[in-house]
Amino acid sequence: MPPLNRRLAAEALGSFFLFAAVIGSGIMAEQLAGGNLAVALLGNTMATGAMLAVLIAILGPISGAHFNPAVSLALWSTGQMSVGEFAVFVLVQLVGGLLAVVAAHAMFDLPLLQWSAHARTGPGQWLGEAIATFALLFVIAGCRGRAAPQTGALVALTIVAGYWFTSSTSFANPALTIARSLTDSFSGIAPANAPMFILSQLVGGLAGYATGRWLFGEGDGGDGATS
Amino acid sequence: MPPLNRRLAAEALGSFFLFAAVIGSGIMAEQLAGGNLAVALLGNTMATGAMLAVLIAILGPISGAHFNPAVSLALWSTGQMSVGEFAVFVLVQLVGGLLAVVAAHAMFDLPLLQWSAHARTGPGQWLGEAIATFALLFVIAGCRGRAAPQTGALVALTIVAGYWFTSSTSFANPALTIARSLTDSFSGIAPANAPMFILSQLVGGLAGYATGRWLFGEGDGGDGATS
Amino acid sequence: MPPLNRRLAAEALGSFFLFAAVIGSGIMAEQLAGGNLAVALLGNTMATGAMLAVLIAILGPISGAHFNPAVSLALWSTGQMSVGEFAVFVLVQLVGGLLAVVAAHAMFDLPLLQWSAHARTGPGQWLGEAIATFALLFVIAGCRGRAAPQTGALVALTIVAGYWFTSSTSFANPALTIARSLTDSFSGIAPANAPMFILSQLVGGLAGYATGRWLFGEGDGGDGATS
Amino acid sequence: MPPLNRRLAAEALGSFFLFAAVIGSGIMAEQLAGGNLAVALLGNTMATGAMLAVLIAILGPISGAHFNPAVSLALWSTGQMSVGEFAVFVLVQLVGGLLAVVAAHAMFDLPLLQWSAHARTGPGQWLGEAIATFALLFVIAGCRGRAAPQTGALVALTIVAGYWFTSSTSFANPALTIARSLTDSFSGIAPANAPMFILSQLVGGLAGYATGRWLFGEGDGGDGATS
Repeated sequence: MPPLNRRLAAEALGSFFLFAAVIGSGIMAEQLAGGNLAVALLGNTMATGAMLAVLIAILGPISGAHFNPAVSLALWSTGQMSVGEFAVFVLVQLVGGLLAVVAAHAMFDLPLLQWSAHARTGPGQWLGEAIATFALLFVIAGCRGRAAPQTGALVALTIVAGYWFTSSTSFANPALTIARSLTDSFSGIAPANAPMFILSQLVGGLAGYATGRWLFGEGDGGDGATS
Repeated sequence: MPPLNRRLAAEALGSFFLFAAVIGSGIMAEQLAGGNLAVALLGNTMATGAMLAVLIAILGPISGAHFNPAVSLALWSTGQMSVGEFAVFVLVQLVGGLLAVVAAHAMFDLPLLQWSAHARTGPGQWLGEAIATFALLFVIAGCRGRAAPQTGALVALTIVAGYWFTSSTSFANPALTIARSLTDSFSGIAPANAPMFILSQLVGGLAGYATGRWLFGEGDGGDGATS
Repeated sequence: MPPLNRRLAAEALGSFFLFAAVIGSGIMAEQLAGGNLAVALLGNTMATGAMLAVLIAILGPISGAHFNPAVSLALWSTGQMSVGEFAVFVLVQLVGGLLAVVAAHAMFDLPLLQWSAHARTGPGQWLGEAIATFALLFVIAGCRGRAAPQTGALVALTIVAGYWFTSSTSFANPALTIARSLTDSFSGIAPANAPMFILSQLVGGLAGYATGRWLFGEGDGGDGATS
Repeated sequence: MPPLNRRLAAEALGSFFLFAAVIGSGIMAEQLAGGNLAVALLGNTMATGAMLAVLIAILGPISGAHFNPAVSLALWSTGQMSVGEFAVFVLVQLVGGLLAVVAAHAMFDLPLLQWSAHARTGPGQWLGEAIATFALLFVIAGCRGRAAPQTGALVALTIVAGYWFTSSTSFANPALTIARSLTDSFSGIAPANAPMFILSQLVGGLAGYATGRWLFGEGDGGDGATS
């Protein structure tokens, strides 16, 4: 396993580029789509999935490519990370992600600091987040054996599907939810709505990981390359 | 081969997520597309193909990743499953799939139980289903040798193509047809139209599998990983 | 190498499904797109690329997965097929392809036999076909070594790109050009315009293959799996 | 390593097809999209990503598949190319790329020589180019080990994401920037705006490559196949 400083750099850089891809492509898509939100979501989906596949493929061997406190929590809760590692992983995910929000706004000449006014709430969307994060952690638990070298592609495709089949568009990531509460654009979420999204993600994610561990057998739950 | 309870769990979970992806993304796409049905179908296609590729890659080694009574029938009819296995596979595919309909409706705050009013009938669409399911089972029979590790991608791409080139949009799955008769949304089919779709699927599927077995040689017809 | 009857069956079935995907998805896309031709071309591209990748992956080991007289010509002209094999390959490509036109029309409840009225002519489009077919044969010549297992994906992506960057939308296939002259739909070409498309394809294709043989070294030019 | 004349031919042909894909698909997409720029960008993205993945997969083993002076500069600056190789690589990238502009215009019956009037300027877009080229070179540095055989796909997906998440749509290539200054179409950039784009690319690219070399370890930074 690489030294901790390189693992943390990988998490920070990966979170930066992933979150910038999500938020930046949302801004671009909304600006170009002329009000057709399905076309905007196609562009947002393509950019997110493409970047996620790339980042997991190259950074997986360094840090496990979490970029997501729900993933780090699942690994810590099953004894695959120490509490100290878990804490600094989440910290750098947040720092990298918040820098991404600022960078996305700077690229598009928008105010650097914003609060989202995009309401996303209600039991339907909470169920959406729970199902989306269940699927994400279940797939991560299943990326072993023959599927391990495809982890980047499979996780990215899970999110691609989630953008369309869940009512909440599959945030599935507490740090990303916080970052998205700070942009008043296509991908934003009102800060007041963020806590229930995060709670739903944690419940769904832990359930999905436990289900996957039972079905696929125990073992590493991060990127297959590091185990 | 894993024990039966894990195989059945894989079929139930896989059918749940596949069917939820098909139906949920249809609802999302229709809501966002502002009446442009081609844009809606692009989103529906992307979500379906992405989820199918993921599920086959991770669940193929557990259960063969059927999620489809036509696939199970082809294997049973060629002596690769017992009649008891076939029966319980179809049962859990239906149970997982019906739960997916309810979950999709719950996510989008729609009535949980619905009948579809979407007419899909006529010789052209029946031919479409026969061709679509022929192609699906032919491709499954051909996923051997060098192509075996790509089974998930190849089956998913077959359905991606089928969504666009067949007049029926390639249901190609009797359990999915029943599930889609229970949603009055983009992907629905009126219950009265379902039997002819299913009959066309079974005829086309068995013909496609027999053709593939002759062309590619006999052997396993499920996921290449398990043989 | 498999016996000739199975090789010919692979060419006929592959041409059938490839041509049906091209023509059927063109009909579907045009019907749904509400006049936005770029959206229609997105659907047409997705279906064509998906089906082509699948067919080459599974049929490549049987017949080399030509589905295209320009490919067969390149192999014959470099001594990799006999003249008799070349003749029967082209024959079954045409038979499979013409059946695909009829099947596509039947699926969409259209007259089975049609002439296209879609004018596609002029030096710009002829140059487009020459460049498209040059690229196709150049890529085929380059699918060796590490790239060989990806032949299906790489050829499909070449056509995906060609649908958009060439002014003629990259027919790149004489048999497909003839088939498309028999459908008065999105993908059609007026019969009077077909000969110049085919001539451009043959000139571009042979030049692309010769360039590729020089650059990549001589060897098999079909599917890497069979050599 | 292949002889220099074949390496240069690979760079020239690769630059030709890559730049033709970018510019040609931009023209096609704009002509078909009826004013919906997001739909146009979807087509432009698909064609660019598809062609780039193909070209790197087949030409990477010959020349390293740069097609980009920023990539060649990164390799020269780290002692992986001589200054003479660097100079002739950039020269043939420019020659191949300029021929691609002329060919794209010829295919679409447009004036062969044009100046772009498309203003692309300002600190936001310069930051966009710096981030886009940082990402590109960082990913190239990371395509080693298990990810090496996927270099073509991963670099292509990085550009696919960049087309959407950067405000400048991710030119990320000085030779391509010059070529795009010579087309008054969707992908163009006014010649007066090109120098700041190129400067931003070089700064971002060198920073991204240095970061990648630190994180992933030193080694070849081109196509993994050649080392």
